[in-house]
This record gives sequence, structure tokens and C-alpha cells, in this order.
Amino acid sequence: MGFFDTHKPLLDRALRAIEERGYWEAYPEAPSRKIYGETAKEDGEAAFRARLGGRFALDGHPSNGKTAGKEVSPYGMALDIAYPTADINALVAASREAGKGWAQAGPETRVGICLEILHRLNRHSFEMANAVMHTTGQPFVMAFQAGGPHAQERGLEAVAYAWREMTRTPAHVTWTKPQGKHDPIVLEKEYRVIPRGLALVVGCATFPTWNSYPGLFASLATGNTVIVKPHPTAILPLALAVETARAVIADAGLDPNAVLLAVDEPGAEITKALATNEAVAIVDFTGSSAFGEWLRENARQAQVYTEEAGLNSIVVTGTDSFKAMCANIAFSLSLYSGQMCTAPQNVYVPRDGIGTDEGHKGFDEVADGIAGAVDKLLGDPARAAGICGALAAPATLERVGACAKLGTLARASAPIEGLDEARTATPLIVKLDGANAHDHEEERFGPISFVIAADDAHDCIRRASEGARRKGALTAAIYATDEALIDEAADAFAAAGVVLSCNLTGGIFVNQNAAFSDYHVTGANPAGNACLTDAAFVANRFRISAIRRPRAA
Amino acid sequence: MGFFDTHKPLLDRALRAIEERGYWEAYPEAPSRKIYGETAKEDGEAAFRARLGGRFALDGHPSNGKTAGKEVSPYGMALDIAYPTADINALVAASREAGKGWAQAGPETRVGICLEILHRLNRHSFEMANAVMHTTGQPFVMAFQAGGPHAQERGLEAVAYAWREMTRTPAHVTWTKPQGKHDPIVLEKEYRVIPRGLALVVGCATFPTWNSYPGLFASLATGNTVIVKPHPTAILPLALAVETARAVIADAGLDPNAVLLAVDEPGAEITKALATNEAVAIVDFTGSSAFGEWLRENARQAQVYTEEAGLNSIVVTGTDSFKAMCANIAFSLSLYSGQMCTAPQNVYVPRDGIGTDEGHKGFDEVADGIAGAVDKLLGDPARAAGICGALAAPATLERVGACAKLGTLARASAPIEGLDEARTATPLIVKLDGANAHDHEEERFGPISFVIAADDAHDCIRRASEGARRKGALTAAIYATDEALIDEAADAFAAAGVVLSCNLTGGIFVNQNAAFSDYHVTGANPAGNACLTDAAFVANRFRISAIRRPRAA
Repeated sequence: MGFFDTHKPLLDRALRAIEERGYWEAYPEAPSRKIYGETAKEDGEAAFRARLGGRFALDGHPSNGKTAGKEVSPYGMALDIAYPTADINALVAASREAGKGWAQAGPETRVGICLEILHRLNRHSFEMANAVMHTTGQPFVMAFQAGGPHAQERGLEAVAYAWREMTRTPAHVTWTKPQGKHDPIVLEKEYRVIPRGLALVVGCATFPTWNSYPGLFASLATGNTVIVKPHPTAILPLALAVETARAVIADAGLDPNAVLLAVDEPGAEITKALATNEAVAIVDFTGSSAFGEWLRENARQAQVYTEEAGLNSIVVTGTDSFKAMCANIAFSLSLYSGQMCTAPQNVYVPRDGIGTDEGHKGFDEVADGIAGAVDKLLGDPARAAGICGALAAPATLERVGACAKLGTLARASAPIEGLDEARTATPLIVKLDGANAHDHEEERFGPISFVIAADDAHDCIRRASEGARRKGALTAAIYATDEALIDEAADAFAAAGVVLSCNLTGGIFVNQNAAFSDYHVTGANPAGNACLTDAAFVANRFRISAIRRPRAA
Repeated sequence: MGFFDTHKPLLDRALRAIEERGYWEAYPEAPSRKIYGETAKEDGEAAFRARLGGRFALDGHPSNGKTAGKEVSPYGMALDIAYPTADINALVAASREAGKGWAQAGPETRVGICLEILHRLNRHSFEMANAVMHTTGQPFVMAFQAGGPHAQERGLEAVAYAWREMTRTPAHVTWTKPQGKHDPIVLEKEYRVIPRGLALVVGCATFPTWNSYPGLFASLATGNTVIVKPHPTAILPLALAVETARAVIADAGLDPNAVLLAVDEPGAEITKALATNEAVAIVDFTGSSAFGEWLRENARQAQVYTEEAGLNSIVVTGTDSFKAMCANIAFSLSLYSGQMCTAPQNVYVPRDGIGTDEGHKGFDEVADGIAGAVDKLLGDPARAAGICGALAAPATLERVGACAKLGTLARASAPIEGLDEARTATPLIVKLDGANAHDHEEERFGPISFVIAADDAHDCIRRASEGARRKGALTAAIYATDEALIDEAADAFAAAGVVLSCNLTGGIFVNQNAAFSDYHVTGANPAGNACLTDAAFVANRFRISAIRRPRAA
């Protein structure tokens, strides 16, 4: 049985999921021995350890004989992995050469291969978890989930969308036009999916797989060959993904150079040269707004899909469960040290305070409530490490220090005990008054948040949604007991193109985003022009060409 | 019954048609009194005549008190219609103001309005036929069909795609995530279609309605307001469409400024200023490659959808019905004097000739066969007028004269007898040898074609498909008795992103393109980046925004 037939039931379920958009788990998120095997955890760690200090081999991959790679774990250890490098012209030539067979393989073969790649990636989720953890600084469980099954689900989602769009048009049709008393005109028409060509996927430093799989799999499924350019500080996760993809493609009897790895080092990046190469027809990019803008300005020969930075806000206007609200916000601020692109930065609170189940709470009491909830959440150092992880970039640690001076501290940042080799910082919370402060109006990436005093609930909504419109945002949240305020916020944030979460308490958080149900980025504000995943994300990666001829007599 | 319910059966049928892609006539193409009414023809002409020499009124439309309009029929008569003009800032402000209600009206209301607009346009197809004929020079029957029902079908197709894409995502879903022994997490999620904002539709001189309706209706249905900027020589057809659209929108109780008309005059065009206005989020353009390129370079704030020029070819390698082949090609060269964007320009023939049912035919015999078929087709002046119509632009007539000197004449162009006031020219056919000629390698718009000698059948296919890849093409055709050559051409033209027609004889022609079945432009070569109509044409005109909240206890 071929890959497509093997995985057809999963594809069918995924197709239903993207229509229904209810809850569905395609790949188990629990890092459980019962699911992944009794020795899966140890095997995965051993496989990861075996990569360290060695040369990462990719058989048949273009190479200039040199290597690159200077990854250092945010937890302290140097990975010391040497990846093969290749000249850009050689990469492009190999990709184009593989492209002929990849285009001709057709949707079914390609989708089968994509599903098998995802299947094998899933089986190696523990190795991937270690790779993600030690390149991004994510805590282990997050690295497993976001780097493994959740990323795989985003990839599966893209494959499902690609399949759906490619198969909307029949492969053949007989077109019969009546001619009154005369014989009808009968044309046989054949429709073919034709890819754009060569796609570039540019990975990011914090979620190398989760943010790259959608573009990678959407381009592959639709017949484009892909060059994967990891962030120089987070190469290993994508190198593993490329290795797996190439193995599956080779097993299917096709040229594994349909997926290539382009490695570079900090300070000697090759992304610009790759992205502007005339052969590159598609670019998927996750990263800074500055580089996203550069790509849109310069990679003019390509379709450019971006996810960039944003200014995510929470509006607090009232709650009937003050403690649960503070605990929920505290977790959102703490998770992966605020390094998720969906993490909130700005918490807007009316200057005169809010009504709660504990009575009126003044502005300072709200800020203190959140700060206290963070203290409580992170009181146990082991738990703090498991929630916050480490900081991916040294600049983030410097930023935490600098931002502490921007206003009155509601909570000071501190290193996490017991992670002495790691680069860590618990959430910094700074109070500002929106009437005269502007420091919160740009993105301050990392465990940095602001509690901002505004005139009233309407002013909170207006400031938060205008920030989203101007600077972009991927998430927004509101706490309110007044339905009219929720409606007002719903309209304001929809107009700003931001997903809004209302009154979240308990085990669901504004920064969480579920494949098959939640759209990630709307594409309607400066936080990115692409949405993971909607029809627009896949429909323009291929075109339909037709051949028509009169029916043979 | 509201507009949506009234037209729901038509929408449902259109949704089926875009999936099946078989033959379907949504609006009758026959200019028949039985269908359109006993006096429809005279009523339509009278309505058109009543517009002449007058002021075109648009109640409630922004105006600066001035007028513009210098249309002259290619058949000789000055239309002398004065259209209201408005400053760009006033147009943008009015469009944005109307945009609030238009976005909030929702998919069902907007789609119902679009379907009613199309219905009313259909009822006035005879008036439109006169308007199209006397701005573009199309012969009457073509002006009726392409300007009326066929254009309406392209509009309906876009509405169907928009509806399908907008309704792919449910409006609400309950997301229930199991939590083992604990209660599940239950979120209520609401999804909203949010438009990009303001769309600009730039009409062309030859098919003002057929090429504009897809973008117009796709943008309108997805919640964007539209400013329609007609070509200064073909204003009336789009002014009529705007008038109808505004009437329907007003009848629905919404602000008619959701559709605006922006008129200018030759030499004082406002398209660049409009297209680069910061508020314009979408541009649909049909016209020259030079202006298409300008838009892509400069209208950077907008999604730009283009249909530009191309180099359409016919490859003649052999036939089992020589006369029918020549007659078919002759009609394609003659129809609307080669001014269709789908008209062939280059006919490639092996230098040593081809095999046919009449025995071997040398290169010159093939050229003479086509030329003779044109002579025969246009032998009767009245029939010639009904097929060729008039030339939209004086430059086209000059070009015919200039191109006659580029090689050996297979057929000389001549004016059409009896159309003495009109600007006319029958097909010019020039013979070239591909080994040393290059004059056919750029677009020569109008009744100008080349019969080009190539080394053999493979060389014909290679030259034609490479021309398409380099300069763009919207159509291609091959005549062959060898299936292997058809396969070779199918692969070559698919790779160049061009629709291929094989061995057309009888009543179907390479320049014809049927809504709901044939895609117009693939978007995969320089002839345009958009395809009429595929999912990519509509899916990026709106985004989905979501609101999620825990289920109330």
C-alpha cells in the first residue's frame, strides 16, 4: 500500500476538521510512554545526544565541501554540530532539477509523501523535543508539544488545505454545448495542477518547526520544491525535518533534492541572496517586521507569506473571578518567558479600577494581582523552569534589564533558580499611564509586559485595538462582565484583524492556538500577511492549466 | 423575499458549475426576442440613444461639479456623454464611509445584492450591447454576448467563488477539548469574514465589462467597497454597471457609495493616483504589460490582480481536415479584428510543410490556405462587418500598416466595405522565417498575425511555448495527427502556464473561453498574475477574524 492510501483515513479526518473547526488531535500531544513507546523518551534524548559534536550528513545533498553551524543551547551547552553547506547556485540548480519529477508526481503522490513525512516526524517527536529545547530555550514539555505534535498538526492542516484546493477542479470534464437542431459541440478538457516552482522557507529562532511546517508542507504538496533556511541559532530542528523529508521522498523513488537545507551562521546570513534569487517563486518567512518588510520590498519575483511581530494586548474591564483572571494572565506572561508571538505584552486597565467578585479593585490592585499571581505560579523553581524555559537570545535578557527602567515596577524580573547555566528571566511587569507613556507602543520581545492605565473601558479597547491596527497583533483578550463591552471589543478587534479571547480562566490561555480550529495570524494587520491556514495560504501556490480538444468521433 | 433567497437557486447551480466545470449557460447568450422580450432590441437601442449627448446622472455620488468624457464610437459617432467627476479624496472618503455598513452587511446580504445586480444587468443586455459596441468597436452580436451574458456569467462565477470561500468556515463552533478525568475545556468560537477594505477596478478599452466584472463582484461580495475606473475610451458600459449596482444597493437600504465611478479623459488619467492611494487595498487591472508592471511596482499597499498582454500561438504540425483547420484559424484571426486578448498572433509551421488529408502541404500552401480561408470568410462585406467589427484605437490601424512591411504578405489588410465611417481593418497575415526573424516575438495588438517557418514540429512547439513563458500567453493551439506531438505540446504549454486547445475545427475557437469551465489566464506566465476565476482570485480579498470564549456555565 502506498503512502497515500496508508494515510488516507488521516487525510479524510483532517479534511473534515478544517471544515468543522472543532477540537481534534491528530498527533497526541502528551509526551507519554504509553503513546510513543516505553523507551521513546530515552531513545529520543539519546538520538539527540548522538547528533552533538558531529557532522550532520545529508546524502546526495548539494555541498561545497564546507560546513557551518554555531548553535549554543539557551540552557548553556554548545551543540557543536557541523552542517553541510552549499553555494546558492548549486542549491537552486539541484532544486530545479528535482522540480521536474516533483511537479509530474501529481497531487496524490506528493500528498502521500507529505503525510508519511509527518508520520515519521511524529514518531521521532522526542528527538525533536530535545532539538527544539536546546535551540530555542523552550521548556521540555512545550518543546515536545509545540515542536512535535502541534507543529505536525499545523503541517497536516496545510496538507489538507492543499489537497482540498488541488482537487476542487476535476482532472477531466466533458463539456457539451447544445447547438439547437445541430449536434452539440463536445470538448474533452483536462485540468492540470502546475506549481509555481521553487519555494524558500525561512525559519525563526523560537518555533523553528511550528512556524515552518505550514509553508513547507503547503509548498511541497502543491508541487513546489523547497529550500529550508533555518535561523542560524535553531538549525537542528529543521535539519531533522529535512532529513526525514528527504528519506521519505527517496523511498518514494523521487529525487530527495525536492527538499534542501541551506545553513548559515550569525553574521553571515544568506537569506537575502536566496530570497531574491530569480528562481525563487515563493517565500515563507517568520521573523521580525523589519526583515518581513525587506522581503516584501525586495523579493519581488516571489509570492511572500509572512508572520511578523505584533503588539498583543489584554483589556481588563471587570471580572467575576479576579483570582482566576490574574492566574490566567500570569501563566500567559510566564509561558516560555513571553517569547511566543502570541504572548500578551500590554494589559490595559481603567485608571479608576474595575469591578470584580472581590469588590472594586483599583488600578494598582489589578497590577499587583497579576504580579502576585506570577510570583505564586513561579514560586517553585522547578515549576518555574518548566514554564518559563530559557531565553533564546542574549538581546532578550538585555532588553529585560533596559525595560525595567521604563516605569514603576509591578514585578521585577529575576533569573530562575537551579538553571544556572541557562539564560533565564521571569516576567518583568511595568506600570505605565497611557496618558503620557509610549514605551508600550512598540514590541518589547521577551518576558516584558506593561500594565497601562487608560481613561475607562472604552479607552482600553480603543488603545489596544488601535495598537493592533498600527503595529500588528496576533492575539487579544478582554475581561468584562458587561456584554456590551465584549461586543464593542469584538467589533474593534475584528476590524483590526485580531483574534479576540474573552474571559479566559482555567486551562486555556490567550497565547494558545489550536490547529484545525484557530486561525493563526489573520493577515489583516501588520503582524503578517499570511494566515495559518486558510485557503489563501495554499490557493496561490499552484495554478491550473488546461488542455481541451474536440471529442474524438 | 430578499435578493438572496430570490437568487439562491441560481447561486446553487453556479456552485455546482464551478465544481463540475461542464457546460452551463447561466444567462442566455442568444440576443433573442423570445428570451429578452419582443421589443428588447429596440428598447435597448433607444435607451442607449437617450444617453447620447447628455449628462450621466449618479444620485448621491461624490462630485466636484465638473464632468469628463470624450468617448467616440469606433464606428464613427461621438457619444458626447458628460460623466460626473470627483476628487480622489472625496471618492476614497465616500467609499470608506460606505464600507462600514457594507462590511457589516455580511456575506448573505452582499451576495444577494450582487446576484440582483447581475439579474438587472442581464435584463438590460441590449442597452449594454450598444454601449459596448460603440465604445470598443465590437460587432453587435459579440458586444451583446461578451458585453452582456458572458460578462454576467464571469461576474456570477466570481460571486459563486466568493460565497464558497466565505462560507467554508462555519460562523460558530463549539470546541471541546477532553481533559482526562476532569471536565473538558469548552470554548465557543465565532468566525467573522472581514474585508480588506477598498478595491479599485481598472477597466480596459476592449472588453470593459467582461474583464471588469470578476474583480468587481469578487471584491463586492467579500465585503470590499469598489471604485470603478473605466478606460477613458470605454466609460459607458461600466457607468451603466455602476448605475445598476448603486440602484440595487440603495434598494437594499445600504449606502450606494459602496460602488463608485471614477472617470477621466485620455491624457489626464487618474489611475496612478487612485491605485497608489493608501486606502486602496485591492486593485484589479486589465490592460498593458507596461502598466501592469507599473502597478506591481508602485501600488505596493494593495493586492494587485492583473490580466496583461500575451503572445498567443498556434502550432500547425499536421491535420486530417485541412480546410476545416484553415477555416477555424481564419475565424480566430478575424473575430473582433484580432483585438481579443485570446486571439492568436503567431502560427508556427514546419519549414518543410505538413501532412494533411489533402496530401503534403508546403509552408506557403499552409499560409495561403489560412489566408484564403480569411478571404472566403470575409468575402461578404456585411458578414465581415459582423465578424470583425471596428478597431478600438487609431494606433491599431497604424500598427497594421507598419507590420505589413515586416515580411512577405500572405494576406493584405483592407478596410471593410460599407463601414465607411468606422475604423476597420481585415486580418493582415505576414510570413516570416523563425530562423532569422524576431518581429513576431512581441505583441502586435490587432488584426496582425505571422505565419512563421520553424525547423520541424518540435521546434514549433518549443518556439511557441518559450514565447509564452517569456512574454506571456493566454491561449495556445496545436493541430497534429500524431498523439506524441500533442503530449509534447501539452507538457510544454502546461509548463508555460498556457491553456492548450487541440485540433479545433467547426464551431469552437481558440479565443473562446467559457465561464464555469475554462479558466481565463492561469496566472503562471507574464500574461497576468490572476486567474478568472479560481480560489486564489477570491480567497485573499477577505480574512477571517475569530472571537472565542469559554462556554457559559
